[in-house]
Amino acid sequence: MRLRTNYVIILHFISIVMVFESLLILLPIIVSLIYREGIALELLASSVTILIPGLLLNIITRRFRNIEPRRKESIIIVSIGWFILGLFGTFPYLFTGAIPNFTNAFFESISGFTTTGSSILADIEALPKSVLFWRAETHWIGGMGIIVLVVAIMPFLNITGMYLYQSETSSAAEERVAVRIRYVARNLWLVYIGFTFAEIILLTLGKMSLFDSICHSFATVATGGFSTKNDSVAGYSPYVQYVVMLFMLLSGINFAVHLTMLKKDYRKALKNEELRTYLSIIFVAGMVITFILYANNSITFERAFRDSFFQVVSIITATGFATADYLVWPIQAILLIAVLMLIGASAGSTGGGIKVIRHLIAFKKVKQSIKSIIYPNSVISIQYNGNGVEQKHTSTIMGFIFVYLVILLVSVLILMVTGLDAPSSFGAAATCMAGIGPGFGTVGPVSNFLNIPEVSKYFLTFLMVLGRLELFSILVLFTRTFWRS
Amino acid sequence: MRLRTNYVIILHFISIVMVFESLLILLPIIVSLIYREGIALELLASSVTILIPGLLLNIITRRFRNIEPRRKESIIIVSIGWFILGLFGTFPYLFTGAIPNFTNAFFESISGFTTTGSSILADIEALPKSVLFWRAETHWIGGMGIIVLVVAIMPFLNITGMYLYQSETSSAAEERVAVRIRYVARNLWLVYIGFTFAEIILLTLGKMSLFDSICHSFATVATGGFSTKNDSVAGYSPYVQYVVMLFMLLSGINFAVHLTMLKKDYRKALKNEELRTYLSIIFVAGMVITFILYANNSITFERAFRDSFFQVVSIITATGFATADYLVWPIQAILLIAVLMLIGASAGSTGGGIKVIRHLIAFKKVKQSIKSIIYPNSVISIQYNGNGVEQKHTSTIMGFIFVYLVILLVSVLILMVTGLDAPSSFGAAATCMAGIGPGFGTVGPVSNFLNIPEVSKYFLTFLMVLGRLELFSILVLFTRTFWRS
Repeated sequence: MRLRTNYVIILHFISIVMVFESLLILLPIIVSLIYREGIALELLASSVTILIPGLLLNIITRRFRNIEPRRKESIIIVSIGWFILGLFGTFPYLFTGAIPNFTNAFFESISGFTTTGSSILADIEALPKSVLFWRAETHWIGGMGIIVLVVAIMPFLNITGMYLYQSETSSAAEERVAVRIRYVARNLWLVYIGFTFAEIILLTLGKMSLFDSICHSFATVATGGFSTKNDSVAGYSPYVQYVVMLFMLLSGINFAVHLTMLKKDYRKALKNEELRTYLSIIFVAGMVITFILYANNSITFERAFRDSFFQVVSIITATGFATADYLVWPIQAILLIAVLMLIGASAGSTGGGIKVIRHLIAFKKVKQSIKSIIYPNSVISIQYNGNGVEQKHTSTIMGFIFVYLVILLVSVLILMVTGLDAPSSFGAAATCMAGIGPGFGTVGPVSNFLNIPEVSKYFLTFLMVLGRLELFSILVLFTRTFWRS
Repeated sequence: MRLRTNYVIILHFISIVMVFESLLILLPIIVSLIYREGIALELLASSVTILIPGLLLNIITRRFRNIEPRRKESIIIVSIGWFILGLFGTFPYLFTGAIPNFTNAFFESISGFTTTGSSILADIEALPKSVLFWRAETHWIGGMGIIVLVVAIMPFLNITGMYLYQSETSSAAEERVAVRIRYVARNLWLVYIGFTFAEIILLTLGKMSLFDSICHSFATVATGGFSTKNDSVAGYSPYVQYVVMLFMLLSGINFAVHLTMLKKDYRKALKNEELRTYLSIIFVAGMVITFILYANNSITFERAFRDSFFQVVSIITATGFATADYLVWPIQAILLIAVLMLIGASAGSTGGGIKVIRHLIAFKKVKQSIKSIIYPNSVISIQYNGNGVEQKHTSTIMGFIFVYLVILLVSVLILMVTGLDAPSSFGAAATCMAGIGPGFGTVGPVSNFLNIPEVSKYFLTFLMVLGRLELFSILVLFTRTFWRS
């Protein structure tokens, strides 16, 4: 009896996701009607096809709606949530024929909801505006989801590496999950929505169409990277590029820091060590690449500066917009881009990757270990933002980095076995795990993921979800202990 | 007054190293006389040139000979010891004209004493036998030194990552350093010398000349990799290759395990988790590459098996002997070789790299972190060989892996700036840090380090010593805390 209940709770959750997702498709339907694309019925059909079984499932599982999911169910719900969203998110692509192939539609959909931004589309501009809007919307919803997940749910479920900024957001650990999520998420969502509106306004001021402004803003604040143009943001004015750059930068910062800023506690916000490190890395990498580009090309300094900082910010925040093809840059600049892919954005942001805070803690630990050679009997604890970090959290964080790199390495080998060449395999695995978008080799910024083998596409969608859910919440499903618990 | 004393102790230690090293050159002199090479006088001159200033320095600093070096001096002594050995080790090359260029001689000498085995020699067989003997001897002495260092000195000085097998060797931490080193090192040296003799005998039984047998045995047990032949071990019979393979395998095992074996405690020895993991990795990688080679080439299964396992054992133990050019293997096999370069041999062996035990602990930590998602309130401690591992040691070990990879990455970027291409930069940095020998690209197994830029050579010698001394004992010298202490 007990086992069955578990799965019914999960099914009930799935039904909610389905109903919710069918409603999300109402926006593209409106877009379709505005632009008279003649595909509103197809979109409506895709919505209803999700809604009806969703409602039925909801009614069947209704009597369990007041049962609080326990730890085990919560973890399963978190882990499969993104796959469910991605699965039904293919319907608008498939029903309108915009992406007729299921594998490609699934890749595009998962890439959207995980805010990765890797695309299988060769000609983006050939798509109806309503479908382009759906792509952007999947990013925006995915970004909202991740804020709840990493800031509210994961610390509660003890999913790792998230302890450090827990103190900034949690008030009472005894609160029920649902209450807690609502409480924490509301303020963060307000920031998220505020950023979106601010960017839309600033972009339209730069003579970008309202439609493109909305789509690009959705993709920016979620650090997604889907554009409505084939050449991403490259064709837009420098003003537009600087606006996008600014909002990518902001979206890669811990949203708790933004909240502190809004409370006018600027001192505390600016003292945040992860923020300082994040900005320093961007500044140094940006300046180095600026000089490399300026020295090697006959372009103005402003152009070198803009190209450099745009790609640096786009990659470190895991957005993936492009204004230049970094694959034609000098090899040193390309390698710096590869390094940025392994650094990642800030924890508690919509950005992906390993995250600056983890590298920071790892460096602090190494420094401490070296110091303990000199003073073997002293107990030097690691400090982060003025608080001591427990040893067990330090080693969990470093374990995360270790397993991240091991999975990346194994993924590169797997992708090579599926038929990709070495640079493309590294680029595809690194970019999908970190949720960036463009990679190296055949999947570079001016290319796409269309022509890679089918099995590679499925493997990469798995990597996207794995990376988006901070590895451990997926890896735990592969342990015997979990299923026996 | 206190500061001066410090440096005089260090100078006294340097004088001992110099006198010791001048005596080491007596063996090549004997070899030179046996083979009537007519360069005995040059070798004697190189010896005397080290001996006389060494003796003078020894006399000047004599009154400090009974002062026990404190922590700070000990660390400095450990750190500069290898550089001093390498510096004066160039004299036999320079005086005989075998390697007339100082940079090249220094590279070859440091590569010898750190048991790396990377060479700048294009035509090894053109060298006099006495000089070839010196090369092999630098390996053997380096291997002896590293046993003392990692098993006896480093745990005492609290140099990191070495705690775990400390319990197997240390009896009383209060013992004075010198007494302790003698006690622990004696038995391990006996094993080391025993292996050397056993390999010499088995190789001569395989019709290898006594001279070549001695040189190859010196290079094997030290996991060095300098051969007396241009094609390394490729030209020898399968029997010889299997013998070399066996002793590489043995030399990559923790010498404390060998001691346990000698005490007939086979159960305990075979239960050693690092040993089991080390052998499993070799078995799996060896079998995978065997099948890759067998499927892609028209060779016998035995040949595929032998080629595969020889390179796998040679790379993981950081020896660097070659019987095949892995650069012409299928890309999957090449990548596996690259992965083995990052794994390394066992701690407490003469082998290099990150070491199996560190990866093992990191994996255990990750497993524990994942389990703690399911049981957040349980305290599951990490077990190694039946003993609990402290959190602070776990995080120090993972910090080592982290900083190792960061230094590797930075080194690749630095080498690229000095003019090496990307694969060669990775190969050179990875192989020199781990003390292996051959790399990738222009520094592959059938090539050498002769034609890389001068500055790259110096940088690589630094990496060799850094890797050999387990990073932290060198990195500590770059901290302000150290010099203020």
